[in-house]
Amino acid sequence: MKLEQRYEGKAKKVYATENPLEYVVEYKDDATAFNGVKRAQIQGKGEINNAITAHLFPLLERAGVPTHFLEKLSDREQRVRAVTIIPVEVIVRNVAAGSFAKRLGLEEGTPLARPVVEYCYKSDALGDPLINSDTAVALGWASEADLKRIRELALKVRDFLVPYFEQRGIRLVDFKLEFGRTPDGTIVLADEISPDTCRFWDAETNEKLDKDRFRRDLGGVEDAYAEMLRRVTGEGVRD
Amino acid sequence: MKLEQRYEGKAKKVYATENPLEYVVEYKDDATAFNGVKRAQIQGKGEINNAITAHLFPLLERAGVPTHFLEKLSDREQRVRAVTIIPVEVIVRNVAAGSFAKRLGLEEGTPLARPVVEYCYKSDALGDPLINSDTAVALGWASEADLKRIRELALKVRDFLVPYFEQRGIRLVDFKLEFGRTPDGTIVLADEISPDTCRFWDAETNEKLDKDRFRRDLGGVEDAYAEMLRRVTGEGVRD
Ligand SMILES: Nc1ncnc2c1ncn2[C@@H]1O[C@H](COP(=O)(O)OP(=O)(O)OP(=O)(O)O)[C@@H](O)[C@H]1O
Ligand SMILES: Nc1ncnc2c1ncn2[C@@H]1O[C@H](COP(=O)(O)OP(=O)(O)OP(=O)(O)O)[C@@H](O)[C@H]1O
Ligand SMILES: [Mg+2]
Ligand SMILES: [Mg+2]
Repeated sequence: MKLEQRYEGKAKKVYATENPLEYVVEYKDDATAFNGVKRAQIQGKGEINNAITAHLFPLLERAGVPTHFLEKLSDREQRVRAVTIIPVEVIVRNVAAGSFAKRLGLEEGTPLARPVVEYCYKSDALGDPLINSDTAVALGWASEADLKRIRELALKVRDFLVPYFEQRGIRLVDFKLEFGRTPDGTIVLADEISPDTCRFWDAETNEKLDKDRFRRDLGGVEDAYAEMLRRVTGEGVRD
Repeated sequence: MKLEQRYEGKAKKVYATENPLEYVVEYKDDATAFNGVKRAQIQGKGEINNAITAHLFPLLERAGVPTHFLEKLSDREQRVRAVTIIPVEVIVRNVAAGSFAKRLGLEEGTPLARPVVEYCYKSDALGDPLINSDTAVALGWASEADLKRIRELALKVRDFLVPYFEQRGIRLVDFKLEFGRTPDGTIVLADEISPDTCRFWDAETNEKLDKDRFRRDLGGVEDAYAEMLRRVTGEGVRD
């Protein structure tokens, strides 16, 4: 099934397949933070992020968000549509945290009166700098129509995920999305949705159940990822 | 005419007047850069920035941009409408320069395919961090309608100033605007437009004729400000 490797990122490998329209994505246990400065392995992360993404993407697809996801192949692998990634990371924030809280002098946990959609230029060399839609258009990374669609889809993802996680006792603080373009020009949600790319706080205790445990040396990293897998796949879901 | 001082900024003082709807702004020679870390006096700057602003604001007013400007009172003073400043600095960029070029790894002088309007949160303590319109709305600094109007006015200012300076042999690289609200809720252009708040490059030689001469220790700071006053007020205007 897998042919040559096309790309190795910090968390995943992407392989060509016999079908030029499809890739296989392999999820690794490797974790990095602060733009690659901090590195480690998180035991079980690859399997968990593969499972969480494979669980959520079909639900999003049904909620009206086209995605790259086709099929889970194995513990670490999924089959996806090969897309050209738009080099704009999309961050959706419900609550001030991380770089946003720091930049604006807000206490982490301050709720935002409305969702904030931020764009960053996807460039490791530059540290994924914050941009806005004018900049993305001016520098040729996306058209105005693309960004309108991307924003619409990002908010649709939010509107699906916030109650989904709420029912599972999780506050979805913020998350990062990547979008890609298929050969016919359709914009689809790509990459992953996992504790690597979201901030998940326990709704009761505010305990962090995401990559911040690794970034901030809070311990219990593996347990947090395992707990998130349990919450997502349904144990203890409240209606 | 001037009553008690209401505010002393890095470049100007603001005084109350007998009329609660009006202030007197006094332009100083003080210059600061890098958020106040670098300080000096630029001889003649106060007079020049007062004169340039007093020259441009009535022209902008006629071009359809409501402003705070009422009247030049003296070499350093102007009478303005008292407004509540919206704490969002508006940067309009035609060409990559300064922090934008650095952040995005672009060579200074790279033309932008379209104007880029950026917003920064006006906070010395935080170093005027880059934000976007969602953030301004979420944190209560402006409404969506305010930002739509501010963007429209900022682009109107650009559309007036770019050819105005072009006819005077100046490339308008970027500029920073501040907007305020009058008691009846109207949004007006406030603050100043001067070599302190714009990047002006000589169209032939690319020589910098603005505050970057001070920021970057290029020398000839006073001469550059004086040259800009000459260009703005009309000497050697090309039709
Ligand atoms: N369907 C897809 N088609 C093509 N590339 C994809 C697809 N989905 C995700 N990718 C890309 O696969 C790469 C590997 O993912 P990984 O998360 O490991 O990258 P990363 O270390 O975060 O680096 P990057 O900064 O490039 O995202 C990423 O560049 C991601 O954008
Ligand atoms: N019409 C106006 N009514 C009220 N305030 C005004 C008006 N025009 C300008 N201001 C404010 O006057 C202050 C003094 O200007 P100055 O340029 O010296 O400030 P600054 O050092 O740049 O500091 P700041 O960061 O507050 O702008 C600024 O805060 C500016 O926003
Ligand atoms: Mg990634
Ligand atoms: Mg100022």
